[in-house]
Amino acid sequence: MRYELYYWPEIQGRGEFVRLALEDAGADYVDVARLPKRGMPAMMRLLESRSAKHPPFAPPFLKAGELVIAQTANILLFLGPRLGLVPKDEASRLWAHQLQLTIADWVVEAHDTHHPISGGLYYEEQRPEAKRRAADFTAERLPKFLDYFEQLLKRNPKGTDYLVGKAVSYVDLSMFQMIAGLRYAFPRAMARLEPTHPRSVALHDRVSVRPRLAAYLSSERRLPFNQQGIFRHYPELDG
Amino acid sequence: MRYELYYWPEIQGRGEFVRLALEDAGADYVDVARLPKRGMPAMMRLLESRSAKHPPFAPPFLKAGELVIAQTANILLFLGPRLGLVPKDEASRLWAHQLQLTIADWVVEAHDTHHPISGGLYYEEQRPEAKRRAADFTAERLPKFLDYFEQLLKRNPKGTDYLVGKAVSYVDLSMFQMIAGLRYAFPRAMARLEPTHPRSVALHDRVSVRPRLAAYLSSERRLPFNQQGIFRHYPELDG
Repeated sequence: MRYELYYWPEIQGRGEFVRLALEDAGADYVDVARLPKRGMPAMMRLLESRSAKHPPFAPPFLKAGELVIAQTANILLFLGPRLGLVPKDEASRLWAHQLQLTIADWVVEAHDTHHPISGGLYYEEQRPEAKRRAADFTAERLPKFLDYFEQLLKRNPKGTDYLVGKAVSYVDLSMFQMIAGLRYAFPRAMARLEPTHPRSVALHDRVSVRPRLAAYLSSERRLPFNQQGIFRHYPELDG
Repeated sequence: MRYELYYWPEIQGRGEFVRLALEDAGADYVDVARLPKRGMPAMMRLLESRSAKHPPFAPPFLKAGELVIAQTANILLFLGPRLGLVPKDEASRLWAHQLQLTIADWVVEAHDTHHPISGGLYYEEQRPEAKRRAADFTAERLPKFLDYFEQLLKRNPKGTDYLVGKAVSYVDLSMFQMIAGLRYAFPRAMARLEPTHPRSVALHDRVSVRPRLAAYLSSERRLPFNQQGIFRHYPELDG
């Protein structure tokens, strides 16, 4: 089946967690809003349709045959078994999904460092609030999330290479993305925290050299980090 | 099976979305942190365990036999089919879960109106920021979420009584909780918005009179809304 991913064409954003899974699995997919012929109008048509049976609240969403599925973690819940990126048993799938939802919470908090008041305002319109929120994020929340995932790697009964079981899962790909994004946004905070989180850094490195993923990361399909996405680099927020 | 719910014993919070499902289904469960004999120490022991196979990042979490499941929406994904609170087919389950995740996003935004800077600080330490964020929430985000769910009720091919299919699902119970909580926190904003969202209000009313739920809501098991939970009433935030 050819999957259709719908997401904002100029940012990695939440869509990137889905792209990484599709790319790592070598899945047949198109990134609809980035296609010259279909582009944003195709995405907006589906998003604003008055007749869609299951309209998404927001991108990303995935079209898989007749199904339209939104919410990043829900898309990965659906794709995981189909792409061989999660163990087969229900307990492992729930565990992987639980971790993905914890990453989703982390993503919101990373985003809200630069938009603590409103997504509808520019960063420049909420800079003092952003400085306060980012200071709390880098001092309290970022270490708490990193500690949690570092502990999971240490405790995984199947070994310290991956978060769920003994093989790579979509959660590992998402963890790679978190480390990469946080390094872009908060290089000073991450330089301080990485030495005490060696397993998380090693996981990032292990994922980044997977052949299909490495090819993707060096291709034009991988959008660069920028100041429109979730992870943005404002030096004044990186205390 | 007797389910064990673990959540902060003095607030409705995120745990309430799980409690509503268990109560509506008449499930056999205990609310562990509220039991005189086990209480908070039992929850903290599990939360801080160094040997737990699948440690939660935060409450709520559910113990079901050997499984420990965290993340509110993930718990409902697991419970839904077991409690008869979601249709059986995969497409409907993904759709219900997608809506629950959209509600989870809404919950974060409702919470962050009073804590836009840090969950580790008191409201009083972030009041000016809270006023700005709450003004955006009541003017922009709250109508956007309400409009979305109102449209879903209007468009449901199986009728306007419920959000998913033709019978009640855990998503309807959660929508009841959103309306109830938002009325407590933002009575003025809700009084303004309810007349244009009649189907959502009717859903709230329809859920509230379900026999087991009505019994629960009038029992001591239903904690009152208060100023420690997600939904808090600060008149200055209800513009």
